[in-house]
Amino acid sequence: MTLGTPLSLVVMNEDQRPKDYGNKTMDRYPRPSHADFTYLAKYGVKASSGGGRSSARETIARVAAGAVAEKVLRETYGVEIVAFVAKVGNIDICPETEEDPVRSGNTKFMELLQTITKEEVDQFLPVRCPDAEVCEKMTELITKLKDENNSTGGQVVCVVKNCPVGLGEPIFDKLEAVLAHAMLSIPATKSFEIGSGFSGTTMKGSDHNDPFVSAPKPKDVDMAASTSTSAIPRSLLKTRTNHSGGIQGGITNGEHIFFRVGFKPPATIGIDQFTATYDGSDEGVLAAKGRHDPCVVPRAVPIVEAMAALVILDALMIQQSRYSLRGLIQG
Amino acid sequence: MTLGTPLSLVVMNEDQRPKDYGNKTMDRYPRPSHADFTYLAKYGVKASSGGGRSSARETIARVAAGAVAEKVLRETYGVEIVAFVAKVGNIDICPETEEDPVRSGNTKFMELLQTITKEEVDQFLPVRCPDAEVCEKMTELITKLKDENNSTGGQVVCVVKNCPVGLGEPIFDKLEAVLAHAMLSIPATKSFEIGSGFSGTTMKGSDHNDPFVSAPKPKDVDMAASTSTSAIPRSLLKTRTNHSGGIQGGITNGEHIFFRVGFKPPATIGIDQFTATYDGSDEGVLAAKGRHDPCVVPRAVPIVEAMAALVILDALMIQQSRYSLRGLIQG
Amino acid sequence: MTLGTPLSLVVMNEDQRPKDYGNKTMDRYPRPSHADFTYLAKYGVKASSGGGRSSARETIARVAAGAVAEKVLRETYGVEIVAFVAKVGNIDICPETEEDPVRSGNTKFMELLQTITKEEVDQFLPVRCPDAEVCEKMTELITKLKDENNSTGGQVVCVVKNCPVGLGEPIFDKLEAVLAHAMLSIPATKSFEIGSGFSGTTMKGSDHNDPFVSAPKPKDVDMAASTSTSAIPRSLLKTRTNHSGGIQGGITNGEHIFFRVGFKPPATIGIDQFTATYDGSDEGVLAAKGRHDPCVVPRAVPIVEAMAALVILDALMIQQSRYSLRGLIQG
Amino acid sequence: MTLGTPLSLVVMNEDQRPKDYGNKTMDRYPRPSHADFTYLAKYGVKASSGGGRSSARETIARVAAGAVAEKVLRETYGVEIVAFVAKVGNIDICPETEEDPVRSGNTKFMELLQTITKEEVDQFLPVRCPDAEVCEKMTELITKLKDENNSTGGQVVCVVKNCPVGLGEPIFDKLEAVLAHAMLSIPATKSFEIGSGFSGTTMKGSDHNDPFVSAPKPKDVDMAASTSTSAIPRSLLKTRTNHSGGIQGGITNGEHIFFRVGFKPPATIGIDQFTATYDGSDEGVLAAKGRHDPCVVPRAVPIVEAMAALVILDALMIQQSRYSLRGLIQG
Repeated sequence: MTLGTPLSLVVMNEDQRPKDYGNKTMDRYPRPSHADFTYLAKYGVKASSGGGRSSARETIARVAAGAVAEKVLRETYGVEIVAFVAKVGNIDICPETEEDPVRSGNTKFMELLQTITKEEVDQFLPVRCPDAEVCEKMTELITKLKDENNSTGGQVVCVVKNCPVGLGEPIFDKLEAVLAHAMLSIPATKSFEIGSGFSGTTMKGSDHNDPFVSAPKPKDVDMAASTSTSAIPRSLLKTRTNHSGGIQGGITNGEHIFFRVGFKPPATIGIDQFTATYDGSDEGVLAAKGRHDPCVVPRAVPIVEAMAALVILDALMIQQSRYSLRGLIQG
Repeated sequence: MTLGTPLSLVVMNEDQRPKDYGNKTMDRYPRPSHADFTYLAKYGVKASSGGGRSSARETIARVAAGAVAEKVLRETYGVEIVAFVAKVGNIDICPETEEDPVRSGNTKFMELLQTITKEEVDQFLPVRCPDAEVCEKMTELITKLKDENNSTGGQVVCVVKNCPVGLGEPIFDKLEAVLAHAMLSIPATKSFEIGSGFSGTTMKGSDHNDPFVSAPKPKDVDMAASTSTSAIPRSLLKTRTNHSGGIQGGITNGEHIFFRVGFKPPATIGIDQFTATYDGSDEGVLAAKGRHDPCVVPRAVPIVEAMAALVILDALMIQQSRYSLRGLIQG
Repeated sequence: MTLGTPLSLVVMNEDQRPKDYGNKTMDRYPRPSHADFTYLAKYGVKASSGGGRSSARETIARVAAGAVAEKVLRETYGVEIVAFVAKVGNIDICPETEEDPVRSGNTKFMELLQTITKEEVDQFLPVRCPDAEVCEKMTELITKLKDENNSTGGQVVCVVKNCPVGLGEPIFDKLEAVLAHAMLSIPATKSFEIGSGFSGTTMKGSDHNDPFVSAPKPKDVDMAASTSTSAIPRSLLKTRTNHSGGIQGGITNGEHIFFRVGFKPPATIGIDQFTATYDGSDEGVLAAKGRHDPCVVPRAVPIVEAMAALVILDALMIQQSRYSLRGLIQG
Repeated sequence: MTLGTPLSLVVMNEDQRPKDYGNKTMDRYPRPSHADFTYLAKYGVKASSGGGRSSARETIARVAAGAVAEKVLRETYGVEIVAFVAKVGNIDICPETEEDPVRSGNTKFMELLQTITKEEVDQFLPVRCPDAEVCEKMTELITKLKDENNSTGGQVVCVVKNCPVGLGEPIFDKLEAVLAHAMLSIPATKSFEIGSGFSGTTMKGSDHNDPFVSAPKPKDVDMAASTSTSAIPRSLLKTRTNHSGGIQGGITNGEHIFFRVGFKPPATIGIDQFTATYDGSDEGVLAAKGRHDPCVVPRAVPIVEAMAALVILDALMIQQSRYSLRGLIQG
C-alpha cells in the first residue's frame, strides 16, 4: 500500500451525495440486488439512509490495517503484494484464447506477474490496468457506461511475491481457502480462483504438474531475513511452471502466489428498475437518483491488496512461531 | 447425503494399494504438485508413506458430519442440497456460448438447478453428471486418460434449495465467503464462483440486477417449519432472475443458492515426471508407480454437499438464535 | 444495568488528572505492580503517559455492551443480574465463621442473594454494599486509607437470577470456566469462586450434594418466555441447597448462579515506593504523585454485572438455537 | 509430566466397575450434584450408563496433549510446571493464620514453590502432598471417608517456573483469565486464585505492590534459549515479593506463576441420598451403589499441570511469533 493509494481512494469518492438516498420511495421498495432486503430479513430493522452498514465504505478499515501488514511483510521477508485490474466488462488484459486457454500457461501473463510493481500500477490511475492500450479501452467503456447511467463488473489479479515456504494450514485453513474467504468478504465479489483456476480444470495432469528444479542460490538482499538464524530459510527448490499458484496442499511452496477475484457490476445504477414493496403487496418501478459508480474494480485494487496482506501476515506469524520454537529445541 | 453415497465412495476406493507409495525414490524426491515438499517445509518431518495427512481420505470425516447436518436442514426447513459434475476436462454439461455467455442467464441451466435431485444424480454413477449424453462422453474421456496413465480436472456445481432468508453475516463472514472457504479447503480445488460468477463480471448492472417480485403464498408442506411460530418465515418476495445466486450483501434472500467449484487434475499420474531432490542437490525423473485416479470430480460431489451442509447449518443456527430471541422480546 | 450506574461511574471518576502521570521519573522507573514493565517487555514500546491501554478505562466498552445484554436477558427470560460489594479490606458483609464456615450454607447470605435487587444496591452508593452498618465501616476504612495515601482490595459477589436450564458447554467451555475467564479479564482481579467455592472444598460430599426436589409450578409472569412455545421451559426440579451455584457439569440447572470475584488493592498509591530502572541498571525510590483511588471495588460492581451479562447471553443464544431447531424437528 | 504420572493415574483407576451404574433407579432419578439432570435439560437425551460424556475420564486427552506441551516448554525455555495437593478437607499444607494471613506473604510457602519438583511430589504418591506429616494426615482422612462411604474436596497449587516475560494478552485474554478458564474446565472445580488471591484482597497497596529490583545475571544453563538470538531474553528485573503471582496487567513478568484450584467433594458417594424423578412427579431416596472415589484431588494434579502447560505454550507461541518478527525488522 503506497501512501498514494488511500489518497486516490478519497479523491474518487469525493462527490458523495448521501442525501440522495433519503427518498420516500426507497423506504417502501428494496433496491434490486442491494442488501436492503436481506438486511431487513436478517435484523428486522432498516437503515434510515442508503446502504448503511452494507456500504463498501467499511473497507476503509481493512485498507488501514492492511497497510501496516504490508509494511511488516516487506520489512521482514521482502514480501511484495501487487494487485491490478485485469478485466473490465469484456476488455481483458490477457484473454484466454484457443492457443492459450489457461493464463497460468501464458508466457506474457506470467512475465507480467514477475515484473509488475505497485508503482507501475499507480501510473495507470484511475483505472489501474498496467497496459496503456487496454487501460485506454477500459476508460472508454467506463465513461460510456457512466453516460448510459449503467455499470459493469470486472476482475482484479493479485500477486504475492517472495512469500516464505510453509505458510498455511493443512486441512480447513489451507492458505487458498483463507484467501478465498478474505476476498469473497469484499463487497460485490462473486468469484475467486488461484493459479490455473477454472481453466486449469481442462488440463491434463502431466501438463498441470509443476516440475521441481534446483533453486538458484538466493541473491543477497539487504534485509534481516536473509541472514538471521530465526528467519524461515528460502526454499532450495523452485518449480518450472506455476499452475499451483504458489500453494500446494494448502501450504506455500515459495513460488509467487497469484489469484483472481471477480466483481459483479454495481447494483446502484441511474436507470429505472422493476421491484416490489418489502411486504410483497405491490410491485412497481423504482427511480434511483443517487450517485453511482459505473465500475468499482479500480477502487477494489487496494482492498484486495490489503486483505491479502492480512491473510499472509496471519499465516506468517503462525509459521514463524513454529519455526522459531523448533530452532530453540534443535539448537 | 443418501445412504448410497458414502457406500459408492467406498466402492470407488476399494482398490487401495498403499504399499506402492513406499519406494525409496520417493524418500528423496518430492512428487510434483503434491504436498510432499510443502509439508516437509512446514513441519520439518516427512510422512513415511504416500501423502499421509494430506490425503483426501481425511474428507471422510467431513462427509460423515455433513450427513447429519443435511438431515437437520431437511427436517427443519426442507433444505435440499444437491451437487453434480458439471464439467470434466473440456466436456461441459452447459458450456458458456456467445449467445449464452453467463450460465446464470441460461434458461436450461437454471431449470436444471430447479429440478435436480440427489436421486437423479445418483442414477448417473459413477460420473454423477445428470445428462446421459454428456455423462457418456465424460466416461469415455476418463477411460481414455486412465489408459494413458494421465488425469484431468473438472467442475462441480452445487445448489442449496429452500434456504431460509437472513443466513450469513454482513462483513467478514458473508455466506459466500464462508462457502468459498469451505470449498477451497477440499483437496485439489482451485476456484469458486457463486451465482453469475466470473462470467457475470462482463454484464451490465441493468441486466445483472435481480428484480424483486411478490412471492406466491408458500405452499403447505408437511413440516414443522411451515407452521411453528419459532420458524423463520418464508420470504414475501422472490427475484425474477437469480444472478446473485441466492445471496445479497452476504445474506440469503430465499432464492436457491448455487455455486461452482473447480478441481485441478490429480497430481498422481502413471507417467515419468521431472523433479529434484528435496535438498536441491540433484534433479531427475521420478517414476511413480502407485494407484492413480484419472479424475476425482465424481467422488468430490458428496464432499461438496457435505461442506455446504455444514456451512449452511452453522449459519442457520446463528440466525435461528437471533430470530427466536427477537420473538421472545416482541411476543 | 440501571441508567444510574454508568452515571455514578462518571461521577466517581470526575477528578481526572492525567498530566500527573507525565513525570520524567516514570519514564525510567516502572511503577511496582503496574503493567508498565510487562507491557514494555511484551511490545517493546512504552505508553507516553500513565497506564495507557492497561488503564481500567477500557472497561467502559464492556459496561456499554453489557447494558444491552442485560436488557435482552431481562426482556426474554426475566434474567436479573445483581452484583454488590461483599468485602473491603477485612470488613465482610458475611464473614466465614467456625459455625458457618461455608457461605453457600449460610442462611442469611443465601437469603440476601434471593432478595437483593439493583435498586437496593444503588441505595448504598458510592460503596455499593447493601448493609447499612457494614457499608458505613467500609466507607470509614476507604476514607482512612485515602488519608494515608494507601489502598486496599475487596470482593464483589454477583448473582444471576432466573437463568434458563441448559446453558453452558460440557467440556472446555463449562459456564463457570467462561465466567471465570470473563471476571479475571477485569483489571485488578486475582480470584474467582462459584457456589461453595474454596471453603466448600472442606465439606463432605453428603453435605455438599444438592438434593433435587419437585419445583413449584412456575408463577405466571408477564413475559413472552412464560408462554411462547419457542422459549426454553422452566425446570421441573429445584434443589434444596445450592452449593453448586446454579451450575452442574458446566451447565445451568435453573438455580441462581452466584460467584465471588477478588480484587487486589490498587497499585497506584500516594506513597514513595522502591523500584528499579527498566534496564536494571539502577534501583531507587519512585514518588508517584498522580490521582489515586483507595479502593476500586465499588466501581467494579457494574463491570462484573456487564461481563456476567455478556457471558450468559452468549450461552443463552447458543442454547436457544439448539432448543429452537430441536422443536422444529420434533414438531 | 513424567512418564510415571500417567501410569499412576491408571493404577489408581484400575478398580473400574461401570456396570454398577446401570441400575433402573438411576434411569428415573438424577443423582444429586451430578450432570445427569443438566445434560438431559441441555440435550434432551440421557447417557445409558453412568455419567457418560461428563465423566472425568475425558481428561486423559488433556493429559496426553499436556505432556507434549510440557516437553516443548522445558526444552525451549526450561519452563517447569509442578502441581501438588495443598489441602484435603481441613488439612492444609500451609494454612492461613492470623500472623500469616496471606500465603503469598508466607516465607515457608514461597520457599516451597521455589524448590518443589515433580520428582519430590511423586515421592508422596498416592496423595501427592509434599510434606510427610501433612500427607499422612490427608491419607488418614481419605481412608476414614472411604470407610464412611463419603467424600471430601481439596485444593491443588501449581507453580510455573522460568516462564519468559511478555506472555499473555492485555485485555480479554489476560494470562490469568485464560488459566482460570482452563482450570475451571476441569471437572469438579469451583474456584481459582492467582498470587495473593482472595486473602490478598485484605492487604494494603503498599504491602501488596511488588518492588522491582535488578535481576542477577542469568546463570548459564545448557539450553538453546539462553544463547539463541531468537529466544525471548530473560528479564533484567526481578521483584522482591511476588503477590502478583508472576503476572501483571495480564502479562508475565518473569517471576514464578503460581495459582490455586479448589475441587468440591465428589458427588458420587455410597450413602443413600434424597432426590426427585426427572419429571418432578415424585421424590425419594436414591441408593447409589457404584464405585466411588473419596477425594479426587491427588488425581487432579497431572490434569492441572497439563492444562497449565497447554495455556502457557499457547501464550508462548503467540509471543514468540511477535518477538521473532520484531527481531527481523530491527535486525
